[in-house]
Amino acid sequence: MSGAFCAAVDWGTSSFRLWLLDASGAPLAERRSDQGMSGLTGGGFGTVLESHLAALSAPADLPVVVCGMAGARQGWIEAPYVDTPAALDRVADHCVRPEHAAREVRILPGVAQRDPAAPDVMRGEETQLLGAFAGQDGAGLACMPGTHSKWVRLSGTRIDGFSTVMTGEMFAALGHHTILSHSLAEPEGEAAAAAFAAAVRRALARPEALVSEFFRIRAGGLLGFAAPGTGGGTLSGLLIGAEIAAARALAGLPEEVTLIASGAIAERYGTALALAGCTTRRIDADGAARAGLFAAATRLWPTRNRRD
Amino acid sequence: MSGAFCAAVDWGTSSFRLWLLDASGAPLAERRSDQGMSGLTGGGFGTVLESHLAALSAPADLPVVVCGMAGARQGWIEAPYVDTPAALDRVADHCVRPEHAAREVRILPGVAQRDPAAPDVMRGEETQLLGAFAGQDGAGLACMPGTHSKWVRLSGTRIDGFSTVMTGEMFAALGHHTILSHSLAEPEGEAAAAAFAAAVRRALARPEALVSEFFRIRAGGLLGFAAPGTGGGTLSGLLIGAEIAAARALAGLPEEVTLIASGAIAERYGTALALAGCTTRRIDADGAARAGLFAAATRLWPTRNRRD
Repeated sequence: MSGAFCAAVDWGTSSFRLWLLDASGAPLAERRSDQGMSGLTGGGFGTVLESHLAALSAPADLPVVVCGMAGARQGWIEAPYVDTPAALDRVADHCVRPEHAAREVRILPGVAQRDPAAPDVMRGEETQLLGAFAGQDGAGLACMPGTHSKWVRLSGTRIDGFSTVMTGEMFAALGHHTILSHSLAEPEGEAAAAAFAAAVRRALARPEALVSEFFRIRAGGLLGFAAPGTGGGTLSGLLIGAEIAAARALAGLPEEVTLIASGAIAERYGTALALAGCTTRRIDADGAARAGLFAAATRLWPTRNRRD
Repeated sequence: MSGAFCAAVDWGTSSFRLWLLDASGAPLAERRSDQGMSGLTGGGFGTVLESHLAALSAPADLPVVVCGMAGARQGWIEAPYVDTPAALDRVADHCVRPEHAAREVRILPGVAQRDPAAPDVMRGEETQLLGAFAGQDGAGLACMPGTHSKWVRLSGTRIDGFSTVMTGEMFAALGHHTILSHSLAEPEGEAAAAAFAAAVRRALARPEALVSEFFRIRAGGLLGFAAPGTGGGTLSGLLIGAEIAAARALAGLPEEVTLIASGAIAERYGTALALAGCTTRRIDADGAARAGLFAAATRLWPTRNRRD
């Protein structure tokens, strides 16, 4: 693969994505796998990385920039957190290099909020934010839904603070490992979207009673009040509604929220935020990660595109 | 075993308890096992019951009264719910008899709240309440903690309404099947009780932000703000605090709450309710189940103690 400026890797807990990027940041090739951090040990990271680069015939001297959980303590090599307030365009200055890598590899750090009353960490989202707001004013509130959703308060391109809500993981844990699994086993029904919206409304109207809502999914099914195939929509709506209510309680909701997400999850959060009275400015999460990694690479290797 | 008036069985999802009771309701013998409903099929119930009765040399004509999930649709035989408002001392009038049982067996029904906005069901707790309030005025609010905690509003010995919170099941699901499992894997530390109380306070003070608290258990550990071995206490405190806050939001908290629980869980809820400003009147859950089954038996077989 000629013409590549760098390889960019978003290496999460359960997923691996790699792009070869040209000097303008455009993707030349892509690889995706489920070889996330949680299945690897220290030595395995370099081997997995090289196998994907070889599959794309990447040059032996092509440098690689990595964001995500590969930089966690239990990852490839720990990239210590940058603390809030954190300037997005300076995060790359604190990257680390794994020893014994077959080529130049830089792992970007995450961001920590060292507030004893609201401790929080992110790894990877700071790079998505850098990509989302490259060259623009990111002031306001960004919602980044996922396994661990992040709600990020920004001034310019500085992270002032953030809050994590384990919405995706709570959905999986409650939906698969409690009595609600009976209600979620049915295939999704026609009324699922309406059930989702109704549940968002209930969670927004009375978030302080959230925990009394979950068993009603089961009881409503047993007593014939719930339409078939609505359990998943209701549980999702309760949790996303509760997440938005928590964000509202912590810092208030602005008129417009920047929603960094892809696919069906972007639609769900867009719908839920509208029910909370917010318009959304949508940014694709995949594109933001790629753009953020490219922005970090151009800061790490500012002269490289001239050299090639 | 001579002198037995009846056998009384509390047959739950994951547990089986049987007592032989004399004509005054005092226990003559007891059996406990993990042969709950979830591991049995229709025919298995009778076999399990007879094996425990044989182990106690129970007479062949001793009648048996059963409460709990054995009466669920997927149990031994369905005992259709009695609806709220439900008079506790009349629930036994709606019991069912399994066919082909080797002796007289009566399965007590559960109670349903057929409110489309707050559908709810219980099976077994109605019998504990009958035992707890036999001959007394149970007016007020009863808290019955557990896998599925019940909060029950009573007038006299009538159930006016109730609400289920899946606190025990949520603790297990979030503690074992999310990233919080890392924080809960440590042995409980000295600071766990203080962490529990602090978490109850936070959940009571700001229940609308509950879902933003969970990930802080993990992040607080990573950033060094959480004392070792406090993850379980914090998660428990957040969930119990949220449960009490939900009860407060739904129906208000009276000055005194009747707490029907046993052992360590009774201590935890007593502490948490005190932090919410409530005194507690404590009733042992095991004794309440046994007393409730006896009260149902004397209604089912009013002449039997004279006959023996």
